[in-house]
Amino acid sequence: MSAKPGDTVEVVTPEKRVKGILMPKPELFGEDTVILKLENGYNVGIDKKKIKEIKLLEPAKEQKAKKEKAKPNKKLPTISILHTGGTIASKVDYRTGAVVSKFTPEDMLEMFPELNRTANIQSRLVFQMFSEDMRPGHWQALAKEVEKEIKAGVEGIIITHGTDTMHYTSAALSFILQNLPVPVLLVGAQRSSDRGSSDAAINLIAAARFIIETDFSGVAICMHGTSEDKCCYIHQGTKVRKLHASRRDAFRSVNVFPYAKVFDNGKIEFLRKDYAKKDKKRRLETKNKFEENVSLIKIHPFINLNYLEKCTNCKGIVLEGTGLGHFPCNALDDITKINKENIEVVRKLTKKIPIVMTSQTLYGQVNMNVYSTGRDIMAAGVISGEDMLPETAFVKLAWVLGQTKNLEEAKKLMHQNIVGEIAERIDEKAFLY
Amino acid sequence: MSAKPGDTVEVVTPEKRVKGILMPKPELFGEDTVILKLENGYNVGIDKKKIKEIKLLEPAKEQKAKKEKAKPNKKLPTISILHTGGTIASKVDYRTGAVVSKFTPEDMLEMFPELNRTANIQSRLVFQMFSEDMRPGHWQALAKEVEKEIKAGVEGIIITHGTDTMHYTSAALSFILQNLPVPVLLVGAQRSSDRGSSDAAINLIAAARFIIETDFSGVAICMHGTSEDKCCYIHQGTKVRKLHASRRDAFRSVNVFPYAKVFDNGKIEFLRKDYAKKDKKRRLETKNKFEENVSLIKIHPFINLNYLEKCTNCKGIVLEGTGLGHFPCNALDDITKINKENIEVVRKLTKKIPIVMTSQTLYGQVNMNVYSTGRDIMAAGVISGEDMLPETAFVKLAWVLGQTKNLEEAKKLMHQNIVGEIAERIDEKAFLY
Repeated sequence: MSAKPGDTVEVVTPEKRVKGILMPKPELFGEDTVILKLENGYNVGIDKKKIKEIKLLEPAKEQKAKKEKAKPNKKLPTISILHTGGTIASKVDYRTGAVVSKFTPEDMLEMFPELNRTANIQSRLVFQMFSEDMRPGHWQALAKEVEKEIKAGVEGIIITHGTDTMHYTSAALSFILQNLPVPVLLVGAQRSSDRGSSDAAINLIAAARFIIETDFSGVAICMHGTSEDKCCYIHQGTKVRKLHASRRDAFRSVNVFPYAKVFDNGKIEFLRKDYAKKDKKRRLETKNKFEENVSLIKIHPFINLNYLEKCTNCKGIVLEGTGLGHFPCNALDDITKINKENIEVVRKLTKKIPIVMTSQTLYGQVNMNVYSTGRDIMAAGVISGEDMLPETAFVKLAWVLGQTKNLEEAKKLMHQNIVGEIAERIDEKAFLY
Repeated sequence: MSAKPGDTVEVVTPEKRVKGILMPKPELFGEDTVILKLENGYNVGIDKKKIKEIKLLEPAKEQKAKKEKAKPNKKLPTISILHTGGTIASKVDYRTGAVVSKFTPEDMLEMFPELNRTANIQSRLVFQMFSEDMRPGHWQALAKEVEKEIKAGVEGIIITHGTDTMHYTSAALSFILQNLPVPVLLVGAQRSSDRGSSDAAINLIAAARFIIETDFSGVAICMHGTSEDKCCYIHQGTKVRKLHASRRDAFRSVNVFPYAKVFDNGKIEFLRKDYAKKDKKRRLETKNKFEENVSLIKIHPFINLNYLEKCTNCKGIVLEGTGLGHFPCNALDDITKINKENIEVVRKLTKKIPIVMTSQTLYGQVNMNVYSTGRDIMAAGVISGEDMLPETAFVKLAWVLGQTKNLEEAKKLMHQNIVGEIAERIDEKAFLY
């Protein structure tokens, strides 16, 4: 076999012909498997014994000579990139054949040289993890790193992050980092950075341009706005969620429009003006405590909440109710008799811990005044999450219970609009914009 | 006070002037409160002692003489309407001031006389309940009523239903009522039928027209397609969810387009052709057993699944994972050590019960092959819910465990596309169509 890693080849077996890029020797697969990266970005392993022929279609492109490290250009502002892992910093792991977080900050800068033309880029690795593994301890550490960068006087901070829970982290940072002098933008990718279809570069560059070219300050997410590469959206950190498992434009603002659109042709269009302006003299206030024993519970037909009585450790609950904020609680007949237990459990719990209602419809807002069920649930002590996303309400409750142990104070804080997590006015036109 | 219930009046108090329709004497509020229905449809109570004046603006319209009961027109086909309660059949309850399910089938026919011009309408009350209180026992009873109507030879069946969990019920009926000879359309309303802005009439009439004018058969939801009254969508029963708490066009098909658009100008446009054709000779197969001890669990950062070990009664679980189907399970440091417990609990449970992964992104599909976390979760015995909505996967699992107690068979059925709940091909264009 004369083909080398990086070569584009066609592998011929009795059953099929597979075209792709030959990958380096697998670490744990042993010598008897050939790994090809297919055009769609996925990898496939082929048993060597079955291979009749490997045709060389195109030799690997020559590695360019290692670039000199870019010298800081004093005319350009400085952006700090904090890497936390995720798809944007991932490549294929030969142990499992799957994608894992592995790129170093140096790898990334080399992959996205455009970044260095926009700003002086400082880049460093904070974590190397999938986003869903993050806990409040990571949010706190990340906030500390942001604080350091702000003290060093940077123009803005980009956090590269896995997309699975990027919206939970953006909500957490919104509550921790109050009174931000400069922007903190979370950026992810839906396709790993070593794939041709990756959205990593465009999202990163749009974030850098938005930081440099606008007066925006605050926590936001910068991701693809459409499935093409035409624009990125800047989403408010507490009003955004991932709404598609794989599309590059998976992130959507809910109940409000994104702050802005960053077009690939150089234009930046603001869709809202209700943001804090950049002001390097403003003093950041950090409030970083969280309570971890908080749950987000999705309501569904014939749910039985009785198990909550045994959760003695539970310090707060966000319910993702149905419709305007309901759960099964009316006993109408023998079949529904059991529904009544739900409201009794909740009534007992709300004497000790805050229970907040949100809606699994995601869009719109909780209104427990409309139906008798909602009124009964309110009478049982459940408080309204207004139009907060369930994910944001969950993060907020964990954060609120880090600020106070007093039940009434916690309930008051949940009702209070602290960092824009409750919309002043729901923009009806923003539904599936 | 000379104004009578039904009169449009202006009530003058020292603080304000309120215009609205005077409502009948409240049952439980006592004699000291006047109730006005405001133009926006909400009711307001005003303390009689504060009232300085009640000005009559417009007297109540005279009640029309009671209409003769429409005689069946033998030239028209017959549609059966089964009422189950919900907003579409609701009015204000003076006990709580909130909306409750109360209209009789006769009330509804009188309110929507257009229906009788389209078809011979048979209408009867099956339940009087909010949808979220429904349990499998109600789904079974409803399916039996549908069966009766089909035996009687009707052209189609309309089920009026609360919107909170209408998509759970439409999924349930899709699995129960296989091989349907005629259409079964669920219809709801986002505004109660005694409000001017109600969508009840248009949804009902669109459903009746769709039944009469097309060759469609199967379980579907018929609801407003836009916030105006221009068209209704016919959504596949297993690929639809409520995505807004209050908008009239809250129901959206996910990963596929709706079957059809029913325009108010008389046109019906099909967006898909992959439906079973009406065939009154086809023999309905009813499979109505469910297992109730099934949970739908939403994953979130720092979730601790340990409590599941104590749920000895649990017969099946659907996880609403993050992204492509993940939960926190990697131990990278001291902070994340605890994440590892999640996968160990799951590994133990999957030896006894099926655990199915879906995604909280709602759109797109689970793919646990892409990341090492997904592979680890699969290795722990969790099976993929493909592109099934979490709500549909939950209903399906409860239904599957009603069909078989065998773990391997249940897992096989979850993978199998039984009634179109797993898309043959996800229509990327259907994202936020």
